[in-house]
Amino acid sequence: MDEFALIRKHFQPLVPGSSDVVLGIGDDCALLAPPAGEELAITTDTLVAGRHFDLKARPEDIGWKSLAVSLSDLAAMGARPRWFVLALTLEQPEEAWLAAFAQGLKAQAAAAGIALVGGDTTRGPLSVTITAMGTLPAGKAMRRSCAKPDDVVCVTGTLGDAALALQLGLATQCARFDADREYLKLRLNRPTPRLAAGHDLRGLARAAIDLSDGLAGDLRHILEASWVGAEVWVDKLPRSEAFERLSPPASRLPLQAAGGDDYELCVCIPPERVAEARRKLDVPLTEIGRITREPGLRWLDAGGGPLAFELRGYNHFS
Amino acid sequence: MDEFALIRKHFQPLVPGSSDVVLGIGDDCALLAPPAGEELAITTDTLVAGRHFDLKARPEDIGWKSLAVSLSDLAAMGARPRWFVLALTLEQPEEAWLAAFAQGLKAQAAAAGIALVGGDTTRGPLSVTITAMGTLPAGKAMRRSCAKPDDVVCVTGTLGDAALALQLGLATQCARFDADREYLKLRLNRPTPRLAAGHDLRGLARAAIDLSDGLAGDLRHILEASWVGAEVWVDKLPRSEAFERLSPPASRLPLQAAGGDDYELCVCIPPERVAEARRKLDVPLTEIGRITREPGLRWLDAGGGPLAFELRGYNHFS
Repeated sequence: MDEFALIRKHFQPLVPGSSDVVLGIGDDCALLAPPAGEELAITTDTLVAGRHFDLKARPEDIGWKSLAVSLSDLAAMGARPRWFVLALTLEQPEEAWLAAFAQGLKAQAAAAGIALVGGDTTRGPLSVTITAMGTLPAGKAMRRSCAKPDDVVCVTGTLGDAALALQLGLATQCARFDADREYLKLRLNRPTPRLAAGHDLRGLARAAIDLSDGLAGDLRHILEASWVGAEVWVDKLPRSEAFERLSPPASRLPLQAAGGDDYELCVCIPPERVAEARRKLDVPLTEIGRITREPGLRWLDAGGGPLAFELRGYNHFS
Repeated sequence: MDEFALIRKHFQPLVPGSSDVVLGIGDDCALLAPPAGEELAITTDTLVAGRHFDLKARPEDIGWKSLAVSLSDLAAMGARPRWFVLALTLEQPEEAWLAAFAQGLKAQAAAAGIALVGGDTTRGPLSVTITAMGTLPAGKAMRRSCAKPDDVVCVTGTLGDAALALQLGLATQCARFDADREYLKLRLNRPTPRLAAGHDLRGLARAAIDLSDGLAGDLRHILEASWVGAEVWVDKLPRSEAFERLSPPASRLPLQAAGGDDYELCVCIPPERVAEARRKLDVPLTEIGRITREPGLRWLDAGGGPLAFELRGYNHFS
């Protein structure tokens, strides 16, 4: 089957007849009608086989996660997902692989209400690049650069699940595990971008970022962009029950603070607004620290004493 | 140097302070302000090392061409270039390579007036994915699906130069050639997207496509989308002087009709509007055939007789 037939067969059904899609897949460009008076949020992410996912990963999971990581960026701005384009590079177009990949992609697209409007397929080492677009009222996006001293640092959900799943070798296992391991595996392979939380935090949080590279590195981006520092209380980092039961105590902090792949939101909220934010959200919101005037990121133990180690986020080129 | 420093150093200067860029590189998403009442045209393209360009290609040329191929898609719709995002996958971040790549990219971005607003860098086999966006008045885009019987099929510029350069092995040679070979090499490595022509053809041409995979395959997309056929007069296919002098006569037709990488526009224009289109354009426009009610693509020789061969476009997966 040639490229064009292949695209039509597996990806065309992903294009819903939304009124803001003037022209979908099948021309030189897609044509979109952005809502009047809204800003457009755009993000692009590449997942490379052997680096961001295992070569033996299930194609359904690759499809899901490729889109989820971009949606997580939209969530961090508080944007509503609208459209995405897919650049897919494959060694060999195997139809079963493509069908499964499209199925995972479709499940995530449907969950987020985002339409596939275009793409490119090329032959080469397996990788997936998705560019996703969302919209939001002008001037209302959450940025990294607006945190202020005394803001409360909060995170959605729990941290460290995906990194623990990776450490336990659960990523590509097909066997069904017990409930804890199944949960951790899902957290790694099928992350849930916090779109509703991002939307609801807009107007309450001053600054936000999504946790893809690990709390240590990602929070540092907020601190540098906002010219502030932070204290983080290590014993407050939220853990799932599965993480609690399966993580070796000595690994907990590195997994939670630098493990990456959480796809939770880290936000800085004025103290008087934290209660409202917690009420509003569809997901737990945990206070893990506060923004300080003094620059730098300080990790504090349960007694409030400084922890004498340096945690850094995942850096693609280091 | 880490990823973030590297991006800042080489790509940050590519972001002009345009008023429609609310927030550029450095947050979870870029924020853009689309002009009111305009449609957004979006296209994504991946160039893979060893497939779309030689592993020994000059990074300046890879930077230029990666953006040019996406701009060519915007040109085919008649859209004005606005913003692009860059997903760059590299085996190893070498600063000299990156600086040269960024320089080529910047030259093409400046020529087209398009702003780099975001990106992602990952480690892996070398490839470049660019997603480019343009805007145009609502309802005015040129599409593939609107050609009608008796429309004149025209192409901008000349065909076959890039394919001949590839055949002559000029792509990665650093030595300076004679003028003809230099010209052909430039046509391959530094294609010129026909943005002004695309803009000016909007409202005159009924259907358009950019010639990236070769006339045979690309024109067929118009025919299939418009439910029509076409006759193409082989001796009318426009040739550059360099092509005329250096192409072996037996190779001319395959190079011009199926060689690919031309990045010219192929448009279908009502006969009474061809003269106006030719006057208006900043680049030669040549009549090469006409649209027919009868489906299929027929190649005719100088005497009007059918040529008994089948030419197909480049197909990424076949």
